[in-house]
Amino acid sequence: MRPAVVLLSGGLDSYTAGAIAKSEGFPLYALTVDYGQRHLREIESARLVARALDVARHLELAVDLRAIGGSALTTDEAVPRDRDLAAPGIPSTYVPARNTIMLSLALGWAEVVGSTDIVIGVNALDYSGYPDCRPEFIAAFERVAALATRAGVEGAAFRVHTPLIALDKAAIIRRGVALGLDYGLTTSCYDPSAEGRPCGRCDSCRLRAKGFHEAGIVDPAVLR
Amino acid sequence: MRPAVVLLSGGLDSYTAGAIAKSEGFPLYALTVDYGQRHLREIESARLVARALDVARHLELAVDLRAIGGSALTTDEAVPRDRDLAAPGIPSTYVPARNTIMLSLALGWAEVVGSTDIVIGVNALDYSGYPDCRPEFIAAFERVAALATRAGVEGAAFRVHTPLIALDKAAIIRRGVALGLDYGLTTSCYDPSAEGRPCGRCDSCRLRAKGFHEAGIVDPAVLR
Repeated sequence: MRPAVVLLSGGLDSYTAGAIAKSEGFPLYALTVDYGQRHLREIESARLVARALDVARHLELAVDLRAIGGSALTTDEAVPRDRDLAAPGIPSTYVPARNTIMLSLALGWAEVVGSTDIVIGVNALDYSGYPDCRPEFIAAFERVAALATRAGVEGAAFRVHTPLIALDKAAIIRRGVALGLDYGLTTSCYDPSAEGRPCGRCDSCRLRAKGFHEAGIVDPAVLR
Repeated sequence: MRPAVVLLSGGLDSYTAGAIAKSEGFPLYALTVDYGQRHLREIESARLVARALDVARHLELAVDLRAIGGSALTTDEAVPRDRDLAAPGIPSTYVPARNTIMLSLALGWAEVVGSTDIVIGVNALDYSGYPDCRPEFIAAFERVAALATRAGVEGAAFRVHTPLIALDKAAIIRRGVALGLDYGLTTSCYDPSAEGRPCGRCDSCRLRAKGFHEAGIVDPAVLR
């Protein structure tokens, strides 16, 4: 079976998405993009997750999106806390074109390793309303992938797998626990303390807490 | 007038594309991606070109595509010389997903600077047959741009300008000379000598020489 390239952030979504692809038989190539996010602790978690998923290779690529800015995650702007998660609009943690950039890098690597399958842990239910997490964005990127590449010209159909797209956070966690995943390896906080402790109040912390609560499961990361 | 983000490689195509956008009234933000190409001299040329175009800002971003490999431009594989330019297929100098990656980075920066116009110097006549230089690829990327971004969600229509797409190399050069461009600032060679002298035999050198010859103009870079 040809490998799949999985975008691994160090959070629980991409870990679960990778594990689902693995359970479908794909050998995994994991790509982690260090884009200058302030939650750099993610990178350490991504390494632990890559090991847990027993990936064939884990590539870390740096691209300094702080030079571009435009997001609370890539500037010194404060990360919003206790935000109304149901509020309309796109919050300040949106990173311009992040998923397009990450999928592009994954696409380049996929071509080189002979893969036509990319896995990304986006979901469009318990999320912050980022435009580049929606199914229509993913479909548009698949079309770009077919037209942009040598493999596409030669007839390959690139697929961007989004196994979590229609799951809420509790369902994602239940699925991962059923697959035996250790979510204690993951980190979700946008703005952890210098010691790496989650703030508990950013969108990402709160969506995670809500998910574990609704799944009736204790978050192992909290126990550490 | 809102600015345009122009991808500037240091070659003559992107210089001309930027100059055309400028002549249409766009203030220019120039983006140069150092992707680990062996023709790093391009970056120096991009700085000269950015100055000649009097851009509002010139951003250089590094992303190490040598870690991905898969191209004669990003590995130690020899760059083909004296290749039959009319041969079918995609040559080994194709860099997997390069234009998708570059357009993605340009898209992120465009959002931050309030631009919905990206300029890229691709052309589909005197070129090496790269899939990500074709009009259908550009159209697919425009759709991604609309769906991926905050601006797109709010109704902005991103446009990827390809003013050279239907011009042959001689027509590009004639257009640039009419605009008063100094092509002596540019560099095109895929595999220059350690001193930065063009090889004269790679696709890029030969397409450039053919263009100047057909335009009946002496390449000022050759005179230096």
